[in-house]
Amino acid sequence: MAIKIGILGYGNLGKGVECAIRQNDDMELFGVFTRREPSELKTLTEGVKVFKAEESVKYKNDIDVMVICGGSATDLPRLTPEYAKDFNVIDSFDTHARIPEHFANVDAAAKAGGKIAMISVGWDPGMFSLNRAYANAILPDGADYTFWGKGVSQGHSDAIRRIEGVCDARQYTIPIDKALEAVRKGENPELSTREKHRRECFVVVKEGADKARIEKEIVTMPNYFADYDTSVHFISQEELDRDHKGIPHGGFVIRSGVTGLKKENRHIIEYSLKLDSNPEFTSSVLLAYARAAYRMNKEGMKGCKTVFDVAPVYLMKEDPDFMRAHML
Amino acid sequence: MAIKIGILGYGNLGKGVECAIRQNDDMELFGVFTRREPSELKTLTEGVKVFKAEESVKYKNDIDVMVICGGSATDLPRLTPEYAKDFNVIDSFDTHARIPEHFANVDAAAKAGGKIAMISVGWDPGMFSLNRAYANAILPDGADYTFWGKGVSQGHSDAIRRIEGVCDARQYTIPIDKALEAVRKGENPELSTREKHRRECFVVVKEGADKARIEKEIVTMPNYFADYDTSVHFISQEELDRDHKGIPHGGFVIRSGVTGLKKENRHIIEYSLKLDSNPEFTSSVLLAYARAAYRMNKEGMKGCKTVFDVAPVYLMKEDPDFMRAHML
Repeated sequence: MAIKIGILGYGNLGKGVECAIRQNDDMELFGVFTRREPSELKTLTEGVKVFKAEESVKYKNDIDVMVICGGSATDLPRLTPEYAKDFNVIDSFDTHARIPEHFANVDAAAKAGGKIAMISVGWDPGMFSLNRAYANAILPDGADYTFWGKGVSQGHSDAIRRIEGVCDARQYTIPIDKALEAVRKGENPELSTREKHRRECFVVVKEGADKARIEKEIVTMPNYFADYDTSVHFISQEELDRDHKGIPHGGFVIRSGVTGLKKENRHIIEYSLKLDSNPEFTSSVLLAYARAAYRMNKEGMKGCKTVFDVAPVYLMKEDPDFMRAHML
Repeated sequence: MAIKIGILGYGNLGKGVECAIRQNDDMELFGVFTRREPSELKTLTEGVKVFKAEESVKYKNDIDVMVICGGSATDLPRLTPEYAKDFNVIDSFDTHARIPEHFANVDAAAKAGGKIAMISVGWDPGMFSLNRAYANAILPDGADYTFWGKGVSQGHSDAIRRIEGVCDARQYTIPIDKALEAVRKGENPELSTREKHRRECFVVVKEGADKARIEKEIVTMPNYFADYDTSVHFISQEELDRDHKGIPHGGFVIRSGVTGLKKENRHIIEYSLKLDSNPEFTSSVLLAYARAAYRMNKEGMKGCKTVFDVAPVYLMKEDPDFMRAHML
């Protein structure tokens, strides 16, 4: 019997989940829940039922896992604990500093409801966290490096758009090759912010806007750009729409560590992602962990879980005998 | 209280475990068990107790996990089930085709003894298997690629040494850059054996040996070399000892998959290892999973497990609160 998935929130992430369900034949989409007027929401695929978010609890026995597709700033801290009382849930909460607080809130709700709630699932936090954890467990003497990109940072693009005279913008975070190579060679460099990443901005301005002022406002913006080498390119809206409509991202997690009697042998563990669509990849990770949430809850487990708590066997559609014979 | 580790078998792997325990302050070495005469065995570090292998059962209550450091061809199929009756055990059984059979034998023994037995732990099988599994769970539509090297293949080096006139040899398996690049670009190439790896051999021959015949015997050797582009370099024993005494290895696991409504977005997940010492890295993986075996058994779990069955939280020395706050 297929695992029935509910989608709460229909932005890029929700659409990604809708598409990814079609690639997992052990799952089916129960429906989309939205705060908008359901009749006005047009789904990507045909025949998807759309419900009002506030009516979701009526379907609590029809949905195996609710995928909560909201923002980390305000949506998820409120929604995940609320829904964890009635549903197995999964979210992609990515405000690293607030994870312990979110975990505690969600854990209490999920335990009260007898449900599994997986939080902070995606690639960072998520697959990158897993790789940091495995690599640290294997090589206790070492250093961790995380590089992001090349990819679009939504937050930085938004920050540029708020500058007066700017119509639209797209910002790419790009790891600096020289730094990556030094890490890969085992040189264990100490890298400043500026040495790890650079930022490239494509900006559309209003007619007659002062480009010199805008460029200066961008490159000197504290927190966002001031600590980086930032390049600014002014382009037309047509060029932005044509050349920069994708949402690519990715990055690298590297651990460089030593073993041996005199710590004379070096080992480099590297994990990297190159993603054409950041939200679609995140959605695909969410679904794999939705499968795990469903199975773990069926075995009687409950409470809040992260990727650290999930044995890989729960993620895989194939049965353990097959996995041992073909994938081990 | 420290986790007490026993080492059964004192080759490169056992020595690696001995060294790695010193890097994990939650572990201590109980002793080394050997089939040799204990008084004749000189350990790398001072003060290590050495026991006869056949007396190990006397210490079953003193040892939390026995790390079985033997060969996959004949040692492990016999030793792991035998020891799993009395100890939590861990091995690096790497004959992929015989894993289901080994699993069944070990599982029966471990369940009878109420112990955890982890098999096929290392990097392939092991970390590479994990990465294949995670990547497949995330991207169901895709292709898997595994490349090995650059590294020393012990089996291929041995095969060369058996040729008449050869004194010593070292064989390197080397992934072919062009193939790797095509995979990374998402071209999903179909690659023949010859297109994926090449083989490089450094050979020391007896005085007056027929080098042309030896080279021909190597490059035409079925299974080992005939399907590869193989280069042979004749060098002196001094050069071999000076330039080729290390046991480096590594490799790449890549999954190239697609998502989206029309499967229009491509994603590349890559995991790679660059290891100065193959046995020391394997030993380090074994110890992380020894920690997991000990903890899982303490929680009442028993039977045979592989890397697929172990939630990452069991591998990590740090407690889950710390991990969520700092590594997620």
